[in-house]
Parts: sequence; structure tokens; C-alpha cells
Amino acid sequence: MRERRVELYDTTLRDGSQMEGISFSLEDKLKITEKLDEFGIHYIEGGWPGSNPKDIEYFRAVKDLPLENAEIAAFGSTRRPRVRAEEDANLNALVDSEAPIATIFGKSWDLHVTRALKTTLENNLQMIAESIEYLREHGMRVFYDAEHFFDGYRANPEYAITTIKVAEEAGAERIVLADTNGGSLPSFVKSVVEKVKEEIKTPLGIHAHNDSELAVANSLMAFEAGVIQIQGTINGYGERCGNANLISIIPALELKYGVEVVGRERLKKLKELAHFVAELANMEIPRNQPYVGDSAFAHKGGVHVSAVLKDPRTYEHIPPEAVGNRRKVVVSELSGRSNLIYKAKELGIDINENDPKLQEVVKKIKELEFLGYHFEAAEASLELLIKKVKGEYTPTFELERAMVVSEILPDHSPISEATVVVKVGDKKVHTAAEGNGPVNALDLALRKALSEFYPELKKISLVDYKVRVLGSEKGTAAKVRVLIQTSDGRRTWGTVGVSTNIIEASLNAIIDSMEYWLMKGRENK
Amino acid sequence: MRERRVELYDTTLRDGSQMEGISFSLEDKLKITEKLDEFGIHYIEGGWPGSNPKDIEYFRAVKDLPLENAEIAAFGSTRRPRVRAEEDANLNALVDSEAPIATIFGKSWDLHVTRALKTTLENNLQMIAESIEYLREHGMRVFYDAEHFFDGYRANPEYAITTIKVAEEAGAERIVLADTNGGSLPSFVKSVVEKVKEEIKTPLGIHAHNDSELAVANSLMAFEAGVIQIQGTINGYGERCGNANLISIIPALELKYGVEVVGRERLKKLKELAHFVAELANMEIPRNQPYVGDSAFAHKGGVHVSAVLKDPRTYEHIPPEAVGNRRKVVVSELSGRSNLIYKAKELGIDINENDPKLQEVVKKIKELEFLGYHFEAAEASLELLIKKVKGEYTPTFELERAMVVSEILPDHSPISEATVVVKVGDKKVHTAAEGNGPVNALDLALRKALSEFYPELKKISLVDYKVRVLGSEKGTAAKVRVLIQTSDGRRTWGTVGVSTNIIEASLNAIIDSMEYWLMKGRENK
Repeated sequence: MRERRVELYDTTLRDGSQMEGISFSLEDKLKITEKLDEFGIHYIEGGWPGSNPKDIEYFRAVKDLPLENAEIAAFGSTRRPRVRAEEDANLNALVDSEAPIATIFGKSWDLHVTRALKTTLENNLQMIAESIEYLREHGMRVFYDAEHFFDGYRANPEYAITTIKVAEEAGAERIVLADTNGGSLPSFVKSVVEKVKEEIKTPLGIHAHNDSELAVANSLMAFEAGVIQIQGTINGYGERCGNANLISIIPALELKYGVEVVGRERLKKLKELAHFVAELANMEIPRNQPYVGDSAFAHKGGVHVSAVLKDPRTYEHIPPEAVGNRRKVVVSELSGRSNLIYKAKELGIDINENDPKLQEVVKKIKELEFLGYHFEAAEASLELLIKKVKGEYTPTFELERAMVVSEILPDHSPISEATVVVKVGDKKVHTAAEGNGPVNALDLALRKALSEFYPELKKISLVDYKVRVLGSEKGTAAKVRVLIQTSDGRRTWGTVGVSTNIIEASLNAIIDSMEYWLMKGRENK
Repeated sequence: MRERRVELYDTTLRDGSQMEGISFSLEDKLKITEKLDEFGIHYIEGGWPGSNPKDIEYFRAVKDLPLENAEIAAFGSTRRPRVRAEEDANLNALVDSEAPIATIFGKSWDLHVTRALKTTLENNLQMIAESIEYLREHGMRVFYDAEHFFDGYRANPEYAITTIKVAEEAGAERIVLADTNGGSLPSFVKSVVEKVKEEIKTPLGIHAHNDSELAVANSLMAFEAGVIQIQGTINGYGERCGNANLISIIPALELKYGVEVVGRERLKKLKELAHFVAELANMEIPRNQPYVGDSAFAHKGGVHVSAVLKDPRTYEHIPPEAVGNRRKVVVSELSGRSNLIYKAKELGIDINENDPKLQEVVKKIKELEFLGYHFEAAEASLELLIKKVKGEYTPTFELERAMVVSEILPDHSPISEATVVVKVGDKKVHTAAEGNGPVNALDLALRKALSEFYPELKKISLVDYKVRVLGSEKGTAAKVRVLIQTSDGRRTWGTVGVSTNIIEASLNAIIDSMEYWLMKGRENK
């Protein structure tokens, strides 16, 4: 098996963002692209340029990212039934995206052709052929996504096969069999892929949906039957019940089938990747999510624990560290020393196994994690924290107190006004500012107060602000975690604050963000 | 296939209750037992009488329930290595439970016998035989649960097979193959079951865990290979990543394999069953849960919706009504009149194509969507809105003004205090309250002001609060959307508020939520 080649095709940014409740900003999409690339994903589907302006903007911006592994694909469909390829707005948007790869879907199911498209079976074949040819003439590589292939095959196998033969002849580089409605059973998927392989020489792919809770199994069965490309999303995000979950597929391929897809080193960042994308999607990772959930390797007291301590294989299907997770014995959010050393190295901080400060840092992080902090998308806060504990950081300013008043009157815009008292050295500044909302008012007041000491703070601005309620059973009295992304135009960094009070949580994240940038400025002098 | 017999064995009350966060009272367990029986489950594992007093109590109480379909099983293990069966407390607790069936687990994996039990392979075989014989001598039927069977088979197939042959000879009525660590792949499960069938005549069962996101697939593959009993839990509850999810397995058997397990009539109560158990477990059903989640049959506007309306098979793998769910047209792209009419019907509001108010409602919704409103998780706000525009709703109260002050002082907990002026009829109330954060303070002040007019507002509470920043490029000055879920203990409804000011957005969602509940109260009078 080791010699098998597998390509990962991620569609979190397109199919994943169709999920109710997910809405990625352009900034989010670019960050996820970088993260996926770093993790070793082979293809990243960035959006559907024919469907919205944000996606067009994405394809323009992504060209400037220095990607190392991944190639970018733009998504679209075959031409419309009664329009010539060169006049089809959707196909032209693909060309205009200047992405190297176009992934276009077409119909394989006769029912869809006649009932949904209301055209003839013959015209559908022409649509497939002409669309692929048109894109190839404009220099694009084409992946052909055979929508509803398994349902189509069940209804009319000859026609379904004909559609992909046409795609093959038109020069598609991959033919991806889609279980669009997510209703197929694993053994059926396997047998259909095997039959398709007898007819088609083009490398095959699988695109499964999770409507029957079988998307991971269906992807793996298709792999067993010979597909080389597996499409899916991080954490299985997607419409209805979601797409195939790459976070469960990747470790199965690596650790159970023994196939190298991203490599064992990157696999150790699987949990980090899952949580990073979840943070930006503003979704929570369920505790029981396979491989990466906080309870995925949790053992209750008694027999299980002692057996696991004697030999982990007794109750663990894989070593948790292999996917960057950890065994959990008692209820504790303990950050492991080795994890931390690994992370610190990444941040360029010198800390080793024998450093007497290490225990102190681990303890501090444990405390904060217990309070609800999460550092996956807030590395600036983490770096600041480690340096503070190690005594390598002196705060540049101190917030003595802050107050914010928000007033809501009928037929008036709401007013929010903040006052702050800030100390820099032995100087004190007391100032006030008005903003759109209490957090914006505080941010502005703080900048105003600091501007006479650090005029360079003008260069930075908040680019994203996310709030997550932790332990939602208590409604608005619950604890909140605020995640902020700040940018100086060249780079972006994340900070975090946690409190039962959203104002305090926000303020802490804003302060971290300013402190971090000022610290970096000093380091670079 | 139709002639195949399948038994469902539910272990929600035992293995399911091992999940972090779940704790069933005795009352809960009895209610769930009745519900499972009513739904047509064949065996209900009620607990482990040897492990805790609550479970002993359960077996006493369950005898008085008038069950129609289900038989009750008590769970336990084979005798301890160095104790005789008749002296084993655990086996005697099974006998004392007076349950008709005992399900006992024993070791199939040589590693476990020598490393975890620290006994000989030969003694383990005696433990299995003697335990089964002892229980049978005391009149119990015995199901033998072969723990870690698949891992054991991988390591030492002869020994694994020997353990279950011993169980067969000792008179076990079922031999259940367990993938205890949840690490096995579907094709492996299938091939092992096929091999076991060549050696064992006793009817087989499968007990799968979800650590690889494959528990449903593994159960179905075992079914294809010939097991007749499928064990699992409602919603897949269970330790670590959970057990096989019966809520996904049952409809697959009924609708995809065409095997009658509970019958088509009862299957229509699948969603109700899933939500009932979730309610008692104090867990939320994820929107994207296959078959029974609120988004499982959600379609976005445009192509999908028009195709589904032409022929539901185009984008639905099964008819949603078959499992008691419903099609949901996601309102976020509610530009079209037909989408809105469909939605209004769903909410029980009478509005038709020729209603002169329809255009007005559509226009209002378009305006709000442009401002950033999203009604997909806020149907209470949508219902209120439609009724307002149609002139069918008069507000029960009016908020004249509100103010909230948050103060942050070093070494103090942050303080948030809100004042509100509320008008009900011609009466005015001016009051104040302190809360954990500004939104909580406003919520409390508003309730306090309204309590003299509507004391029933005490019954409702916020159960979830979500904030999303829209158009994040402007950081904290961006617009925010607040989504609130409120519950009166029986049902939950969602409301939404949008503003550049998080305080105003939250307030609007809170007001909608109270207004909605008061309106429903009046409608039901």
C-alpha cells in the first residue's frame, strides 16, 4: 500500500462555507489558505468566482501568497444549456480568476438533466465537452466533478459513464465522482468506483457528503477501490450534514493504511489545524470529534486508565500525539511540556527541557486554559505570555482604569463613549473617545491616550473581531472569549481575551495586540 | 434482503451515559426506556448493576414498566481472574438484577489478557465459560460481548476465535463482536465478520465505537457480512468519540437496505426520539446531524430550491418526512416570493401569492438582509416581522431608552450596570440592574422592569448567545449580528439583532425574544 499516491483536495473555502452559520471574510480565507498549504494539502478550492465578488477578490489576492505545496482551484459549472461556452459568464469568471485549475461540475444523472436543467441528454454531453475544452484553450487545467454520479449510476449506468467518458476525451485531468446527496452506502461506492476504473483511464477522485453519516467511510472505500484524489473539508463543514471530514480521513490514510499524504511530522499539527479553522469559522470543535476533540482520548478512572498506563494500545486506536492530541486521564486541560517546547521553538523563543521557567510557563498556561483561553489562533498572546513569565518582557504601558457608557435612545444612533487612564513610565494620561459600539470606543480611547508616546500605533488596525460564548447554558451571563486579529499592513497577528464581561475580554485582547506590536518593533530595532 | 432479520440493542443508558457531560437520573432512565420500547427497540441495556447503586435501583423499577417490545439487559463482565464465579460480586449483581438477559464482556485480545488482566490465556477461557454457565444456571439468557474482538483478531486470530468458541459452547445466545477502541476500518470489519461466520453458528452482533468516524459504516458492513444484532446508542452518545449512532443506522437499514427493523410508521418518530433523548441528556442536537438535525434537509435559495421543488430526489437522499424531519428552505437568500410563501406556511402564517402585503414583507426582508440580518437561525424574529408588516401584531411593551455602563478597575471584577425606561400601555417603569457584562445587565434590567406586567417572563431564559462580526475589515467598528436562543423549558426559539453597536444588536434580539414568547402566550389563550 505504501506506494499508493493520494492527493488531498480541500473545499472548506467553497463547499465548507455553504454551511449555515459560517461566513469567512477575505482575510479569513487567505489565512486558511496559508495554513492548509503549510499542512501539506495539495489542492485548495478557494471559491466560486462566478457566484460572488468576494471570491473574485480572493483569487486576485491569493496570487500574492507565497504558497509552498498547494495549487489553487476555482470552482464553477459547465456552461448553461442554451449559451455558448465563450459567452457563459460563469466560465469566463473562471478564466478571469487566473487560477491554474478550474474544477467544474456537470450532470451525470439523467433525472437532473431532464428535470432540473430541462435539456436533452445529448446537449448535456456537449455542455461538458465544450466547457472543458474552452477552459483548456484558455490555459487552465480542468478537474471534472461528476455531480450526483452515484445516484446517476444507480438510475442509468450507461449514461453516467458516458458523461465522464466525454469529460475524459475533452481533456479533464481528474474525474471526481460526487455523492452529492450523501445517500450512498460504502459497499456501493466501492463497487461503482471499481466499475468506473474499468472504463476510465483518467485519475479518479471522490467527493462525498455526510447525509448518511458515511462520508468518511465512503471516501476511504473509494480510496480502496483506486481513486487518487480525495475531496473534503476541514472538520467536515458543508451544507446540510456537511462534506467528508479531511480531519478524520488524513490520519486514517497515514496511520491505518500506511500511505504518506502529508507526512508524520505535519500530521502532528492535525489538531491545531482543526482548531484554527474552527476559530475562524466561529464554530466549536465538539469534544467528541474523532482524533482532534478534547475528549477523543479521554479515559475515565479505574480499569481503563490503569490498562492504558500499562500499555496505551489497550484502549487507544492510535497514539494521540501522532495527531497532536493528548491522552486525558483526569479532567484537566494540561498543556504538555513537550507540546509547549515545540510551540515555543516555532515562535522563535528559546526554552528547553531543563529551563527552570518551563514549569512556571506550563502552570500559567494550564490556569488560563482552565479559564477558557485558547491559543491556537492567538499566537501573539502566547508569545507575550511566555516572555512575561520568563522575565523577558516589560510592559510598555499600564491601563489604570477604563469605563465605557453605551446609550440607546429611540430614533437616535446608539452612542458609546469610553474613558481610559493610562500610565506610561511615570506619566499619566486621562482621555476619552466615542466609537461605534463600546469596544470600538475603548480601542479608540486607548490609542488616543498612547499616541503621544507611541505615534507608530497609527499604523496598526484591527482587522477581525470574534466573540465566542463558552458554556452557553448560562446565556448572557456566560464567559466569553474574544479573538482579535490586528494588522500593520504587512503582517497580521492574533490575540485573545477571556472574561465573563465582554468589555474586559475585548480590552485584554486589544492590549495584548498593541503590546505585541510594540515589543516586535523594539526587537527589530 | 427484505427477509433479513435485524435486532437493535440500545446501550444509551449504559455506554451512552459514559459520555462526558451526560448524567441520567433514575427518572430519566425509566422515561428513555419507555420511549425506546415505544419506538420498537428490541433490547435495552439499562445499566451495570455491579458498578453503582443507581443501576441496581433501575433494574428494580423497570420491572414495573409495561413494556411492549423491548427486553431488558443488564451489563457486566466475566468473573475476575482469581475468584470463583459464585463468589464474584459482579456476576451476583447481574443475577440479583433479575433482568432476563445478562450481557457480559470478556477478553478476546491476548495482549489484554496478559497485560491488563495479568493472567494466562487459558484462565481467560475458563473465566468466559464459567461466567456464562453460572448466569445460565441462574436462569438468565446470556449475550457475550467479545471486547476488542477486531484488535484481538488482528493480533492473534486463533486465540480470538477460541474465546468466542468457548462462549458458544457455554451457551451464549448472541456473540457480539466489539470494536472497543473504534479503530477498525469498514472493509476489515466486514472480512473478519465473514471469517467468524465460518466458525460460529451462534447469531452474531456488532458493537462499534466512533473513534475513526466510522462506527455507522462499520455497523452496516457487519450487517452486510451477516450479523443480526446491532448495538449502539441514540445520537451516538458514549465515551471518547461515542458509540455507533442508532439514529443513523436505523433509517439506513429501513430505507436503504429495505429491511424492516422498527417499521415505516415508527421511523417517522426518529427525529422526535433523537430530540427526546438529547433533551434528557441535556445535549444539543447539532444542526448538521444526519437525518434529524434542523439543517439535514436545508436548501439554499436559487438552483437547489427550484430543483427540489420540481423533484425532491434531485437534492434529497430520502424524503425528510420518512424520519419525521422537514425540508427547510434557508431564508438567507429570501429574495424570491415563492421562498417566502413556503417559509411562512412552515411557520403557520397565512400568506398567499395575491396578498397585497406580500410585496411589503419581501421588501422589508430584503432591506434587513442588506443590513446584515440572517433569519435562518432566528425564525421567531422572522415570524414577528411578518406579523408586524401584516398588521397582525401589536407590541406588548416599548423600550424608551437604555443605558449601560461598564467599568474596569485594576484588581476588581469588572462592573456592568444597566438602566432602562420601559412603557407598557401608559405606565412607565424606570429601573436598573447589575450583571455579568453589559448584555447580561440589560437583560436583567429589562426583565425587572417588565416583571410587574408580565410575571410569566420568569419562565424563560437565554440558553445561547452568539456574536458574529460582519464585514470584518473594519475591526471593532464593524457591524455585528447577535443571535440569541431562548427557552421556556419546553421549546427553544431564535431571534436576531444587527447593529454597529453590539449593545443595541443584543438588546434588539432580547426584545424580540420576549415579544415572541408573550405573543405565543396570547395566541394560545
